[in-house]
Amino acid sequence: MKIALVGAGNLATHLALSLVKAGHHVVGICSKTGETARSLSLRIGQESMATSRLDELPKADVYLIATKDDVISTIAEEWPGNLSEGLIVHTSGSVDINVLAPAGIPYGVLYPLQTFSKERDVDFKKIPCFVEGSTTEDTMKLMELARSVSNKVYTLSSEHRRLLHLSAVFACNFVNHLYDIAEQQLKQNGFPTEWLQPLIEETAAKIKTVSAREAQTGPAIRKDQRVIECHSAILAQEPQHLLIYNILTESIYQTFHQ
Amino acid sequence: MKIALVGAGNLATHLALSLVKAGHHVVGICSKTGETARSLSLRIGQESMATSRLDELPKADVYLIATKDDVISTIAEEWPGNLSEGLIVHTSGSVDINVLAPAGIPYGVLYPLQTFSKERDVDFKKIPCFVEGSTTEDTMKLMELARSVSNKVYTLSSEHRRLLHLSAVFACNFVNHLYDIAEQQLKQNGFPTEWLQPLIEETAAKIKTVSAREAQTGPAIRKDQRVIECHSAILAQEPQHLLIYNILTESIYQTFHQ
Repeated sequence: MKIALVGAGNLATHLALSLVKAGHHVVGICSKTGETARSLSLRIGQESMATSRLDELPKADVYLIATKDDVISTIAEEWPGNLSEGLIVHTSGSVDINVLAPAGIPYGVLYPLQTFSKERDVDFKKIPCFVEGSTTEDTMKLMELARSVSNKVYTLSSEHRRLLHLSAVFACNFVNHLYDIAEQQLKQNGFPTEWLQPLIEETAAKIKTVSAREAQTGPAIRKDQRVIECHSAILAQEPQHLLIYNILTESIYQTFHQ
Repeated sequence: MKIALVGAGNLATHLALSLVKAGHHVVGICSKTGETARSLSLRIGQESMATSRLDELPKADVYLIATKDDVISTIAEEWPGNLSEGLIVHTSGSVDINVLAPAGIPYGVLYPLQTFSKERDVDFKKIPCFVEGSTTEDTMKLMELARSVSNKVYTLSSEHRRLLHLSAVFACNFVNHLYDIAEQQLKQNGFPTEWLQPLIEETAAKIKTVSAREAQTGPAIRKDQRVIECHSAILAQEPQHLLIYNILTESIYQTFHQ
């Protein structure tokens, strides 16, 4: 298929690379200033037009929007009249499919459930992708596109996608923030952050074989009041971290003992 | 060395297997009823005496206590007079070394920073181990023992070990609880928990190459109020999860925007 990309950030980069690998042609890339679009265009090693203007994008079968969530509705509302054919698709976990209706062409969603960084390679084939089309035909077209880059493609409504995205916030964004707090604590004490790496890896790997409920360890599940008091005393000078400690300790306790 | 183990749980199992592999002789294992000690004794494939009584343990160079934290002081206080030589060692992250003084023999700590499950293999060589001895000689002896099973051995005081253990609670126990919440949400909606697996793995793997601070993504760092309100509405019926959502969202926000 001929694909045009709106956005040239982390997700757009990995999408573009995977699409090219799957034999599609990325005909154009549009980014705010055009600069990141040019870099991405060079990186994918295909002749793709880089621009900062939507109306300069070449005609495509699918226009994939991989921008920040809050820009998607503006893009749909300002969709140029010269791009009056094809399918317009956003890639967000939390934005409703109908936000794309104002574009005036068929529309849909392709949500890859993963956290992307430009500098890290990911195996797109393993990333679960969730599609939704404004018509059954659009859904079918999106299934075909998604299956060309991923082995795990499912249809999912906007409402269900929002629920899934909320779980992803807990399992990824919040988890990463806890890693950040742990790293801060290590640095404060002059300890290398690498010390925690095997523990972090094993904690994530463990729940492939057992449920997180079964995998739970630590002072809160053991009702180890002595350790909990000792930790609270250490955190006395950091009210924000103490609050997080108390809330999560209480939540683990309630999960297992009430 | 001749090693006797007090405890036959997750950590004791992995310790015993690694010690045997490193050429040590696990001469005896003591557990509350003796049953788990017998299973472990069979599993390691070495002639080790299994017992439920400390005073029946054979004499050893090192007595390794791998029990729940709150039992360690009782074990030290009731240490049998016939085991009046060798080194008594606990393996806890949060218990002070001096709790072992009442045993009346040289003492120390060997803390392996990892989460253990009986049914999961771990590569002990990669686990950071932190040792502390009641005298320099004891520390040296423990370094030697720890280095025979792990490639990452450090000396660490009881105070520093407690600080490290607190970071481990954030990076492992609390993280696992967030996985649990995410899994609950998935199950409630009839989604398979496998959907989150690639995201969880990548989130943990990412911070090998960038700091958790740099790796942060999600609505809170993007100040995406629309998404945050939508998530809060979904969580309205689950006050405990909403509380965790709000506290962590606020904490991420403060980390990046204040």
